[in-house]
Amino acid sequence: TKKKEVSYSNRGKSLEDDLNETNVFYLQQKLAIIHKKPVPIQIVKVDYPARSAAVIREAYFRTPSTTDYNGVYNGYYIDFEAKETDSKTSFPLKNIHPHQMEHMKSVLHQRGISFFIVRFSTLQRNFVVLYEIVERFYENMKNGGRKSIPFTFFETEAIEIHEGYLPRLDYLKAVDVLIADKAVCESEEK
Amino acid sequence: TKKKEVSYSNRGKSLEDDLNETNVFYLQQKLAIIHKKPVPIQIVKVDYPARSAAVIREAYFRTPSTTDYNGVYNGYYIDFEAKETDSKTSFPLKNIHPHQMEHMKSVLHQRGISFFIVRFSTLQRNFVVLYEIVERFYENMKNGGRKSIPFTFFETEAIEIHEGYLPRLDYLKAVDVLIADKAVCESEEK
Ligand SMILES: [Mg+2]
Ligand SMILES: [Mg+2]
Repeated sequence: TKKKEVSYSNRGKSLEDDLNETNVFYLQQKLAIIHKKPVPIQIVKVDYPARSAAVIREAYFRTPSTTDYNGVYNGYYIDFEAKETDSKTSFPLKNIHPHQMEHMKSVLHQRGISFFIVRFSTLQRNFVVLYEIVERFYENMKNGGRKSIPFTFFETEAIEIHEGYLPRLDYLKAVDVLIADKAVCESEEK
Repeated sequence: TKKKEVSYSNRGKSLEDDLNETNVFYLQQKLAIIHKKPVPIQIVKVDYPARSAAVIREAYFRTPSTTDYNGVYNGYYIDFEAKETDSKTSFPLKNIHPHQMEHMKSVLHQRGISFFIVRFSTLQRNFVVLYEIVERFYENMKNGGRKSIPFTFFETEAIEIHEGYLPRLDYLKAVDVLIADKAVCESEEK
């Protein structure tokens, strides 16, 4: 009966760990190819010891100019940013860098699928939300509006993803919904 | 009359430099969003000096598990590997890592556009060649066949890209041809 006690509770694991595990699963199952981009590093000094690997001795972290993850899923270019917040009531927009918003806008212009995965860590709830929706809040903030997106907005307007065993965080289900919605929008525009 | 002497000759510049410049141009002109992936680094030791930026004091280069470049172009997922050779007669397949081939095969399976940009440095000639074509040579090599792709094959079967001023290496023109060819193939398959 020990099996019944297995819990998929996720306390302590970071959103990034969960997404990386999920992406490995997607890759192995041939469902999608999505990778975390390495953090860009400015390398200043490298030693080349005889008979062993080069050692970086001085380097600095650079600010990423794009998003955390990108790749391809069934012909679609996928590009997203993962964000965690401890807040129980809202997602603070200051977590998003202006250059990330710019990058995501360009992705949209190239007809990629651009979204955020937002984890409310304390509440253990995860949501997928389209870039376009976050952009509305972001522009509104720049015009003096509120500096965060209410949790209640996520509950009613975003797509919730539930934690599981394999994959840990099956966000492609949400991406399917985004793609289906987009197809509807595009055909309505005609 | 000095202007007439301006040459777009590319001696000395690396293929990577040319592609990075080209990608900046594409980004600024809103033609495509394609980035070089940072080389993955294994960080072992970081110092956090008071009042200044974190300094990486020990780190190692890791072997990239994918390709050099990826991004999105007009709804298409683009994924490619850039390779240079000094040879005047053929492109040696040992330049390609098995994990790169695996990655590109997966990209194809997800309906992305996967290709190589090959520069014959000594000849100052550049070619775009679909992953699928390289795969034929690669598989043939694994079965005991020749270990390189003849330059004459590139001349007749690949798409040549010529160096220019802005952009340096307009490979999207070649990608347009690849996409058009694929569309023809797919409709013939039906
Ligand atoms: Mg993030
Ligand atoms: Mg390369």
